[in-house]
Amino acid sequence: MLLFLDHGPVREIRLNRPPANALSLELIIALREAVESAPHNSSRALLLSGTPGRFSGGLDVPLLLSYDRPTIGKLWHEFYALLKALASSPIPIAAAITGHAPAGGTVLPLFCDTRIMADGDFKIGLNEVQVGLVLPPVILAALRRLVGPRQAERLAVGGILISPQQALAVGLVDALAPTSEVVDRAIHWCETLLALPAEAMSVTRREARKDLVACFGPYTEAELQGVAESWWSPETQSALHALTEKLGKKPASR
Amino acid sequence: MLLFLDHGPVREIRLNRPPANALSLELIIALREAVESAPHNSSRALLLSGTPGRFSGGLDVPLLLSYDRPTIGKLWHEFYALLKALASSPIPIAAAITGHAPAGGTVLPLFCDTRIMADGDFKIGLNEVQVGLVLPPVILAALRRLVGPRQAERLAVGGILISPQQALAVGLVDALAPTSEVVDRAIHWCETLLALPAEAMSVTRREARKDLVACFGPYTEAELQGVAESWWSPETQSALHALTEKLGKKPASR
Amino acid sequence: MLLFLDHGPVREIRLNRPPANALSLELIIALREAVESAPHNSSRALLLSGTPGRFSGGLDVPLLLSYDRPTIGKLWHEFYALLKALASSPIPIAAAITGHAPAGGTVLPLFCDTRIMADGDFKIGLNEVQVGLVLPPVILAALRRLVGPRQAERLAVGGILISPQQALAVGLVDALAPTSEVVDRAIHWCETLLALPAEAMSVTRREARKDLVACFGPYTEAELQGVAESWWSPETQSALHALTEKLGKKPASR
Repeated sequence: MLLFLDHGPVREIRLNRPPANALSLELIIALREAVESAPHNSSRALLLSGTPGRFSGGLDVPLLLSYDRPTIGKLWHEFYALLKALASSPIPIAAAITGHAPAGGTVLPLFCDTRIMADGDFKIGLNEVQVGLVLPPVILAALRRLVGPRQAERLAVGGILISPQQALAVGLVDALAPTSEVVDRAIHWCETLLALPAEAMSVTRREARKDLVACFGPYTEAELQGVAESWWSPETQSALHALTEKLGKKPASR
Repeated sequence: MLLFLDHGPVREIRLNRPPANALSLELIIALREAVESAPHNSSRALLLSGTPGRFSGGLDVPLLLSYDRPTIGKLWHEFYALLKALASSPIPIAAAITGHAPAGGTVLPLFCDTRIMADGDFKIGLNEVQVGLVLPPVILAALRRLVGPRQAERLAVGGILISPQQALAVGLVDALAPTSEVVDRAIHWCETLLALPAEAMSVTRREARKDLVACFGPYTEAELQGVAESWWSPETQSALHALTEKLGKKPASR
Repeated sequence: MLLFLDHGPVREIRLNRPPANALSLELIIALREAVESAPHNSSRALLLSGTPGRFSGGLDVPLLLSYDRPTIGKLWHEFYALLKALASSPIPIAAAITGHAPAGGTVLPLFCDTRIMADGDFKIGLNEVQVGLVLPPVILAALRRLVGPRQAERLAVGGILISPQQALAVGLVDALAPTSEVVDRAIHWCETLLALPAEAMSVTRREARKDLVACFGPYTEAELQGVAESWWSPETQSALHALTEKLGKKPASR
């Protein structure tokens, strides 16, 4: 599900779950463990990438529809833990958004240090509302941090998918590059940070991301239960099944 | 003073107090009641509009100069109540800014969900300071939420009026349209939101606007008294009378 | 070290410490006293300028390397006091950024009311990390207020120097002007504010800058000690000595 490629001190974690790099419970757990263990394996920066043309399709809805209540609870718990691991990573993480990145595919980069996106006919955005899901407050807070409250309200409430150029204009991504160069650009970004005086960079970075880590406040546990519970609302279930049929898939049997 | 036009589930509330749709105490109360009652009358979205070329000229200063101390106190109390009703409306509200929108004409849209402005030779902005009024803190907070602290400081302290294009550039409005199409565009915006899964949209919307509602905090009552009191400062009275003379009007006798 | 030029009610404080207007302890103290005393000397607005081509090179590192521990402690204490004096000035302060403005040369304008920069081949930015210094949290907070959390993280962690045009695009400065006109533009900005109803402008201004003053919270004293202490870390000392050698200077003997 994950490939690891070391470029000197920069470890690339490549999502590798065909066809769309959709997020399953197992992938979420593996990704968190990869993020948390990297600094102990002498990596000094991380790079999160996908397949050319497909960064990640977000949560694997057809699969998740086969999950029972405790497993959905565990999924959201692990997803929040992954986001918190990204936000509080002691080493920098660049997102190389190599292609389509709807929903969860947008969420992961929100918690990274920088976002470089493939400049092609791709979509990015938090379209959770479009598919019947409430956008979890922690994710909304991270979005607001990047694009400001006005754009966050517009994008989140409307569940709007946008182009890479539009994403650059509102600040949802930081730079564009040809698809074949996105990973190299992200490696270069990491190397530039690593060339700086290490202590000054790290301490300043921790302070600059303190507000992002603070999104995971004392109410996160209660919030998590609400998010997991809303999965089972009739409206959400109906929208998710409609989406799955549109994708031409049956809910996975488990 | 108000016209109501129902476009399916979208209720348009049109300001209709010639010549400039200036805000009197009665209009402010009527507008709040219209906003608060709409969800109970099966409206699912609201649209606040004005006359082509004139959205609203803001507070009716010549009339207000005839108000006594208790009435000015009541006016500000009701104005804050209107703004809070807009901010905390359970259904979306689009502002169709059909023309000139100085001062109070800018304030109302700040608390709506989206702002679509007529792309003509019109002015928008919080020019309160220009006419001798302190900009109330709740309004400054809502402005800061839309355009950020830097632009909010610049626009508010200078009391600057800007063009629709400039308003779009700084984020004071979200879109421009020909004057004759502003209302249609706002109806379309409402319909787009109403086509989304209703529960996911509403819950996400409430979360995305929580910071706006929070502008009305525990200190609002004390703030209100300060705002009402400042109306009677010699500088403010002198500036308001000068403005009224410039408008070629006598203060209304009551 | 400072020149004072009165343009009617607008007092220009011009940095005048050749060759680069670098900040020594004495200059920092003198500048704070000038800012604090101006309102008592009938000035109604302030203007902070430098030499054409050189606004300020920031802290005078070669000189500071000759300071002992208590003096470095005093330097940071006085620098914070200067920043707080700028933030909480009862009269408006325009920064006329007449040229190069790295590090401390960027910090001072962050706390002013507006920033007009010379549109030439100059650099501006918080490159503290590049030279081995942690960016103090108060400064990061003021940067975040101007450019938002995303750009603040990017600029501060990378220690990035940018052009005047780039600074305008991200909001680090508010306007550009030819070098020879920067001071006049800043005087004009002050005069425009002073032409407004004074009380309405001042009260609105105080409210609009309350969040900037609030950056100096109850933890500032502890923060200050950490900042002063980090000066003596081996990495910082090594980077500062390398910088000094690159500048072709010996650390000043005291």
